[in-house]
Amino acid sequence: MNSISFYTGLIEDEIKSLSLPQNPASLYEPVKYMMDLGGKRIRPVMTMLSNEMFGGDMKAAIKPALAIEMFHNFTLVHDDIMDHSAIRRGRPTVHEKWNEETAILSGDVMLVLAYELLSNVSSDKLHAVLELFNESAKKVCEGQQLDMIFENSEVVTIDTYIDMIARKTGALFAGSLKMGAIIAGSSAEDAENMHGFGLNAGIAFQVQDDILDTYGQSGTIGKTIGGDIASNKKTYLAVKAAETAKGAVLDELKSLSSNLSIPRESKISRTISIYNALSIKQQAEEAREKYFNLAMENLDKVNVKEADKQTLKNVAETLINREK
Amino acid sequence: MNSISFYTGLIEDEIKSLSLPQNPASLYEPVKYMMDLGGKRIRPVMTMLSNEMFGGDMKAAIKPALAIEMFHNFTLVHDDIMDHSAIRRGRPTVHEKWNEETAILSGDVMLVLAYELLSNVSSDKLHAVLELFNESAKKVCEGQQLDMIFENSEVVTIDTYIDMIARKTGALFAGSLKMGAIIAGSSAEDAENMHGFGLNAGIAFQVQDDILDTYGQSGTIGKTIGGDIASNKKTYLAVKAAETAKGAVLDELKSLSSNLSIPRESKISRTISIYNALSIKQQAEEAREKYFNLAMENLDKVNVKEADKQTLKNVAETLINREK
Repeated sequence: MNSISFYTGLIEDEIKSLSLPQNPASLYEPVKYMMDLGGKRIRPVMTMLSNEMFGGDMKAAIKPALAIEMFHNFTLVHDDIMDHSAIRRGRPTVHEKWNEETAILSGDVMLVLAYELLSNVSSDKLHAVLELFNESAKKVCEGQQLDMIFENSEVVTIDTYIDMIARKTGALFAGSLKMGAIIAGSSAEDAENMHGFGLNAGIAFQVQDDILDTYGQSGTIGKTIGGDIASNKKTYLAVKAAETAKGAVLDELKSLSSNLSIPRESKISRTISIYNALSIKQQAEEAREKYFNLAMENLDKVNVKEADKQTLKNVAETLINREK
Repeated sequence: MNSISFYTGLIEDEIKSLSLPQNPASLYEPVKYMMDLGGKRIRPVMTMLSNEMFGGDMKAAIKPALAIEMFHNFTLVHDDIMDHSAIRRGRPTVHEKWNEETAILSGDVMLVLAYELLSNVSSDKLHAVLELFNESAKKVCEGQQLDMIFENSEVVTIDTYIDMIARKTGALFAGSLKMGAIIAGSSAEDAENMHGFGLNAGIAFQVQDDILDTYGQSGTIGKTIGGDIASNKKTYLAVKAAETAKGAVLDELKSLSSNLSIPRESKISRTISIYNALSIKQQAEEAREKYFNLAMENLDKVNVKEADKQTLKNVAETLINREK
């Protein structure tokens, strides 16, 4: 199997050589800007690894893998508008650097460009790949909408939270891995297990993201610790704490999130103290392990040699135990 | 040939029976709302007529025709945000009725739903249809971006204006007609002529739209006359007037668009007086005729019986001579 870094390099090269229309420049420059911002390129790498695992041709998978990365970046451009985020990967977001109208429209054209990249799939597989991509894309939109609904919801249960991240994050992981399998010509059963592997790994990945925002090292994760707490974001930790806390502790949690006169640092440290008292971090880690194990069970069922699964296993482990 | 109203009814029925996901309701309700707002359904009707003209099966074309209508409505949802429009077809726009975040995301999911409808095309034609759709969609985004750029441009030439409306309006007319031809299995040459027919008819349609905004009957067109003048929109009339006017007349035109102390009614009536003195309406009508004739030349070249072209000819004539 080729290494992760081999495929990351391949994806970076493809992004560099992506031929975009030149006119109007103000529509396509934000596309290039966004694609050049970097990131881990996890999703397209998973497509390539899945494709290789089933003996697929690298050339047949590279453009569809890029379609996934283009789609992912489209969601970031529009999410940043909706979330009023000014910074992405240390650089101004598209709507900050240009304006909101341009960010809406450049995002739209990125979605079209994703389908254009996808259309490089051979005719015998185009229907299946298109259907998978459409399903994944709808789920991602649904997940983002649920995330926004949760912002204004007093009570969110762990089940609805998991359902939200399964769509917002899990669906595209699942789509990336199943797409590689389809393009390589795997059996329907194997493709479905790759879907399950991605879905569960995506959920575990997102729970780890939630843990890191509160318990990571700010120097390592590249952003300030406690941002989610400060902005009252519904994370696994916040939802679990609200579900677990009782009496005076619950009252304090509510007051911390609603009382605007509490200074930011104090809000964060007092909330973390409650999390610690309720063992929220441990519970989140248990949930992460649960979904990681489910992902591994899915991968175990796939009918290829164990040795050929190792690189994807490493990807999942790295993603879930990452410190940033 | 089936009548225009037959196909309009068919499209309306299909829209009514469109099965959309239920959850999250706040993501999919705006989709239904927008699709139910009505409109002339010109584009999908053109797809159906083009398909029938080449002897295609109605059942094979209906979902792709709906994809075109879904795409068109997606552009309206996002354009309304960008143009800060509060009313569409006499009803509140999506971002007014819900909010901007929902309008962005519901628009996004409409674009995905358009591709989902499109994927009903048979495997042997899916590549060609997808490529056509992607090209048309990119052009529409480019046209909208150019339209926004023009808002802040002092000088716009007639050529760049025509290029803008060719993308913003012409490309989807062209795509609708060529799609019907491809699905019916026409020759590549005929499909290309249908594309040209749609492109030129779309340009003529947009010039007529510009004429109506200034010279229509407000009771007939369903909106206040002179809206484009009041908002300094770059229309065929405005661009032509700026190109034709000289000396004191040009100075007055500039002052009318830049001097905020001039009351709306006075701004509109004085601008129309200048248009009249410069014969702008006649020049716009000549341009409309020119593109209409080009459209007819394209249709003439298509290798089907003259009698079978009549319904599409009528559509083009009705669109271009419409009073609303």
